[in-house]
Amino acid sequence: MSYSPLIDQLITALRCLPGVGAKSAQRMAFQLLERDRQGGRLLAEALQQAMADVGHCAQCRNLTEQPLCGICASHSRDPQLLCVVESPADVVAIEQSGSFRGRYFVLQGHLSPLDGLGPDDIGIPQLLERLQESEVEELIIATNPTVEGEATAHYIVEQVRPMGLNVTRIAHGVPLGGELEYVDGSTLTHAFNGRKAL
Amino acid sequence: MSYSPLIDQLITALRCLPGVGAKSAQRMAFQLLERDRQGGRLLAEALQQAMADVGHCAQCRNLTEQPLCGICASHSRDPQLLCVVESPADVVAIEQSGSFRGRYFVLQGHLSPLDGLGPDDIGIPQLLERLQESEVEELIIATNPTVEGEATAHYIVEQVRPMGLNVTRIAHGVPLGGELEYVDGSTLTHAFNGRKAL
Ligand SMILES: [Zn+2]
Ligand SMILES: [Zn+2]
Repeated sequence: MSYSPLIDQLITALRCLPGVGAKSAQRMAFQLLERDRQGGRLLAEALQQAMADVGHCAQCRNLTEQPLCGICASHSRDPQLLCVVESPADVVAIEQSGSFRGRYFVLQGHLSPLDGLGPDDIGIPQLLERLQESEVEELIIATNPTVEGEATAHYIVEQVRPMGLNVTRIAHGVPLGGELEYVDGSTLTHAFNGRKAL
Repeated sequence: MSYSPLIDQLITALRCLPGVGAKSAQRMAFQLLERDRQGGRLLAEALQQAMADVGHCAQCRNLTEQPLCGICASHSRDPQLLCVVESPADVVAIEQSGSFRGRYFVLQGHLSPLDGLGPDDIGIPQLLERLQESEVEELIIATNPTVEGEATAHYIVEQVRPMGLNVTRIAHGVPLGGELEYVDGSTLTHAFNGRKAL
């Protein structure tokens, strides 16, 4: 073992980051210790604050440290359009494409019976309550085009059918089996424009 | 901007890590917030402690939070062998190879007049003092085979010549197990110039 205990602890802790193996964790630790202690201190503070204070938007379940996220709180979003996505990263991808002016509902996952994830775990009761209370006229389902995402979309369609809403699914310009957060903006725009009534 | 201020701050702070761009910083932040808050808290603590407490070994300049690093403090290392390297990462690589049982001196850089790095900045006076005080009999220079690393090696050789030490340089050439066709030209030139009679 060639590291002192604190360096060893830092390298181990860095490996909780996705895509960071032993070699890059060591590179990161040495880089901070040798050349960027201030960056390391700022990162420690940012992590501590975010882990402690970031929760979920009371209305859309997106990540935020406010009671309501910026999109739900904004008056410039179209209250008649609601887009259902699986994750906060999907919201970011859609926002960056500039193709949508409504609001979101973030499931924070998808139906996955094998993992014990049912409708309650992905906020379906909260979604239905929201649809009953609000002026939403079109529900756009933008779950991932994967088996689980499609099953989740199908389940939501069945649940909201009695409400007489206009329910749409974004077009499959998004490659099947792909994950929404990695799709480029113009493909997402295309997918929004090509959405079809379900 | 689709992130709340604390998430935005976290993503920005993560980008101080080498090799982490906007997209992977976002992925890391969401991964911690959605699935591994405990990992994020441990990382914050490990960073805070390491940035605050890790300094340099009084004897070899390697990174450590102790007055002396583990290698300098160990009684099982050969005190007659001293290996000069540029960085703590070099110490790790050599230790992992198991090829050296002596101790180290870590320059924390190399001579680089253009960057204003002279002998004092890379601890040369400390190295000479160490050689005078200790029982070192062989000084092995393992700076990188770059222009700066070679210049640094040459400078050290000149400085220690009057001491009558045995001074050596690790061999450079085609890596074992490597394929000749993938080795770069300057390594091949070096390997040819350094050829030995069999
Ligand atoms: Zn919200
Ligand atoms: Zn030491």
